[in-house]
Amino acid sequence: MELNWDNLDTLEAFKKLLSLKGQVSLKEVLNAERAAGFCAEGAAGLHYNYAAKQVNGQILSVMQEAADEAQLTEKFKALYEGAVINTGEKRKVLHHLLRGQLGKDVLYETPSGTKNARGFYEEQRLAVADFARKVHAGKILNEKGETFTAVVQIGIGGSDLGPRAICLALEEWARVQGAQKMDAHFISNVDPDDADRVINVLIRDISRTLFILVSKSGTTQETLANELLVKDFLKKAGLDASKHMIAVTSETSPLANNPDYLASFYIDDFIGGRYSSTSAVGGAVISLAFGPDVFEAFLKGAHAQDKNACEKQIGKNTAMLDALIGVYERNVQGYPVTAILPYSQALSRFPAHLQQADMESNGKSVNRAGGPINYATGPVIFGEPGTNGQHSFYQLLHQGTDTIPLQFIGFLQSQSGTDITVDGSTSQKKLCANLAAQIAAFALGKDDENPAKVFTGERPSSLIYAERLTPETLGALLAHYENKIMFQGFLWNINSFDQEGVQLGKILTKKVLAGQSEGALKVFASLLGV
Amino acid sequence: MELNWDNLDTLEAFKKLLSLKGQVSLKEVLNAERAAGFCAEGAAGLHYNYAAKQVNGQILSVMQEAADEAQLTEKFKALYEGAVINTGEKRKVLHHLLRGQLGKDVLYETPSGTKNARGFYEEQRLAVADFARKVHAGKILNEKGETFTAVVQIGIGGSDLGPRAICLALEEWARVQGAQKMDAHFISNVDPDDADRVINVLIRDISRTLFILVSKSGTTQETLANELLVKDFLKKAGLDASKHMIAVTSETSPLANNPDYLASFYIDDFIGGRYSSTSAVGGAVISLAFGPDVFEAFLKGAHAQDKNACEKQIGKNTAMLDALIGVYERNVQGYPVTAILPYSQALSRFPAHLQQADMESNGKSVNRAGGPINYATGPVIFGEPGTNGQHSFYQLLHQGTDTIPLQFIGFLQSQSGTDITVDGSTSQKKLCANLAAQIAAFALGKDDENPAKVFTGERPSSLIYAERLTPETLGALLAHYENKIMFQGFLWNINSFDQEGVQLGKILTKKVLAGQSEGALKVFASLLGV
Repeated sequence: MELNWDNLDTLEAFKKLLSLKGQVSLKEVLNAERAAGFCAEGAAGLHYNYAAKQVNGQILSVMQEAADEAQLTEKFKALYEGAVINTGEKRKVLHHLLRGQLGKDVLYETPSGTKNARGFYEEQRLAVADFARKVHAGKILNEKGETFTAVVQIGIGGSDLGPRAICLALEEWARVQGAQKMDAHFISNVDPDDADRVINVLIRDISRTLFILVSKSGTTQETLANELLVKDFLKKAGLDASKHMIAVTSETSPLANNPDYLASFYIDDFIGGRYSSTSAVGGAVISLAFGPDVFEAFLKGAHAQDKNACEKQIGKNTAMLDALIGVYERNVQGYPVTAILPYSQALSRFPAHLQQADMESNGKSVNRAGGPINYATGPVIFGEPGTNGQHSFYQLLHQGTDTIPLQFIGFLQSQSGTDITVDGSTSQKKLCANLAAQIAAFALGKDDENPAKVFTGERPSSLIYAERLTPETLGALLAHYENKIMFQGFLWNINSFDQEGVQLGKILTKKVLAGQSEGALKVFASLLGV
Repeated sequence: MELNWDNLDTLEAFKKLLSLKGQVSLKEVLNAERAAGFCAEGAAGLHYNYAAKQVNGQILSVMQEAADEAQLTEKFKALYEGAVINTGEKRKVLHHLLRGQLGKDVLYETPSGTKNARGFYEEQRLAVADFARKVHAGKILNEKGETFTAVVQIGIGGSDLGPRAICLALEEWARVQGAQKMDAHFISNVDPDDADRVINVLIRDISRTLFILVSKSGTTQETLANELLVKDFLKKAGLDASKHMIAVTSETSPLANNPDYLASFYIDDFIGGRYSSTSAVGGAVISLAFGPDVFEAFLKGAHAQDKNACEKQIGKNTAMLDALIGVYERNVQGYPVTAILPYSQALSRFPAHLQQADMESNGKSVNRAGGPINYATGPVIFGEPGTNGQHSFYQLLHQGTDTIPLQFIGFLQSQSGTDITVDGSTSQKKLCANLAAQIAAFALGKDDENPAKVFTGERPSSLIYAERLTPETLGALLAHYENKIMFQGFLWNINSFDQEGVQLGKILTKKVLAGQSEGALKVFASLLGV
């Protein structure tokens, strides 16, 4: 099938959508029937409820037309079957194959022969699993013959935010399940205080700590500086750094097959940093911290959700529906920001990961062919866990002068099961009652004689929920968002898989450090002591 | 002096400002001279550089007119001398007196006689200091006669975000200075997994852990549920909870003078939650973690910065200038979001605290008298530390379709001093070089033949910087932002000191838990198992 790559504003369905601005009043339509019925089923027990979004039958029907006209599932198929979707860097986009085969085999030529992408990723996953099992079984030991008890990931951006958010999300679950194998820590910032702090937390156990150096290119400034800071420390502690460090990198990087590392695991150019959580970038630290089976379950949930994203009907494809509602909110309703609000302390850093995944993918101003676009693309994404956020920025969400669309995430059960009944309800019930109350409060508002106590309502939110946050549901949740971002990129007709906007800062930083800066830049640097 | 309380759009100076929209091209004006000269001096060595903001002599001159016409410093004086600035709740706003006297004594009648506000706050600070010194000196011990080694704050919103951000900011500094007295932890979320996680981290040292229960009203749902969860755990561990818990509350709360607590410390209704970091709410945990002298130094920096906020000239008043530039960006340029970007890992949670301080204060839709307003108020605030953010959401900041004003924060020296030279520069120099490079990249952009590699520039940022992040500079930094938010509230003519927008959610939550919900709310609750 020949794919069109048309700008959003050229789609007939989008023109229809524009005529449907402001059509739905949540106060008028949100009743019990709609709350129960406006729901799409994802994988691994994930539900996407959009009853409190500003849509109706007509808008949903035009969204289906937009999905068809923009060939969203066909473009997704082209992507997972190996088309060069990353036009700027002329690369395939294959992170879906990390968790399973969705279509035809993706084969390509390399200097060492024909490679099957899925085969390569699976081979690396098994290598990581084998290494982790040996560490846990005491077959890989430190110089003194002791087992390793802690693992520290050194990486930044995609090599940090996703793996860190996932480790935090599973820490409590793993402890309760008895699956906690090693403590996981992270060093990311080039600020030397970041590494110093982590080292000093671990100082008593440093001889039993394994470091994972993660850099696809092997040239990331922050990561290499932190590697040397750590190596310097290990050396001063009388330890052999090469016995304490593994690498996750590409096969062509300086870190590959390097005797400085106990082992090396690989990804390739078809895995973008922000989409690498399901590769060895996330796999090494997750497998070491919680065991390879937990990582496998996480991938299983992601793969099941990827299959959901193949559905052509928006009522059956949570990511595609979420993407279309987001585009309606951004380009028809004109909302510039979206908040992600997980009612789960385990997901405390999940919004920070989605902030990268979304803003780095879709914060673009030209289309995938480098042509102009005449509409807004990715919104600002932010969020903190509930109920904490309720006592913080929710004031503005309820009564501020802008409307901010919301995405709530909730679970019926806590991870630990530890709980207490106070005033007739458990903490978990209170958490979920708060979530339900917020959806209603934002949508329906409240009148009051005192103008300061009026809630205008009409503030849209969706709810993604599942029974419990497990490795499977977490994998499905991650894949839902990755695929939502991908579909939005298709709708906006942009390249969601490059990040040219990070280059200029790198170039100017090098100039400053080489003493070659001029004008204002030179002054700013000197003010900061450089 | 009689104060006017006029809406922003009625000010003559604001009408002039509106006519100055889009007047400044950063590419045209940003040179070495401007980079060095556009700077206001704050307290404790803080500098506010606004060279890369879209202002010029004319705009600054109209901003000064706006400051005078809106009587910003006169309103500030009224505030710190005890006027009822919090109109909705009919309360004074006295957090500045926590750190020093700025004007006339604030005296008011209570059932027990005339009270001097500053005297009361100082008495409480000294009581906290005395308690902390006794704990450190081993004069207050656990049941077995052992010293306490860890402290856990139980609180949410203002009782959590500020104190947590400050403890994180000073942890590394204190360790290097030898001022680290006790490990500080925090429990906030009603999600039972939050308390369970912290308890399990501390499980081996639980008998040597002191808990601080923080709730001004003594009725916060989350905090009381977590208190009982912790007490249940202490009881099961065979410990007497009343020997392990202190309270920070108001004198009229159920937690006051209560034998369930080892000691109680007090704040009053004139200290809003989000402005309570410099009260006993922050003071207890900071004094226990790092010693009362560190808390005192922190207050000293804040007080010095408060004095800076009394200056009538915008060129000498960093908070007022920052506030005016923010209003220009929000109401003239039309930017809906502001990012706070500290180049300091120690400030990793400082943006989350400012997110609350700003969005809860200024996310309002009616004026302080309950009348209508016809302009945007508080923007969305978000941020993560640099250089981490560079590898995450900066793509959108550089090349997205919206302009997001930025506030950078930087320090010439790291806190630890631990560092390494790689490729000719230390990590600290790399950190600062990155910061300088970003300011230039955002403002000046870059042309390119490839449209995907074009940076349009013209994206405004300011830079707050100091020699090093110490308790004094941290106090000054906090006060700068608190005062900026206050001045913006004065300009928008709103009440920055209530939070009516959090009430509806509380009411609906109670309905759900009492089984009294109906319609959509009842369905949402049942979907979540409530």
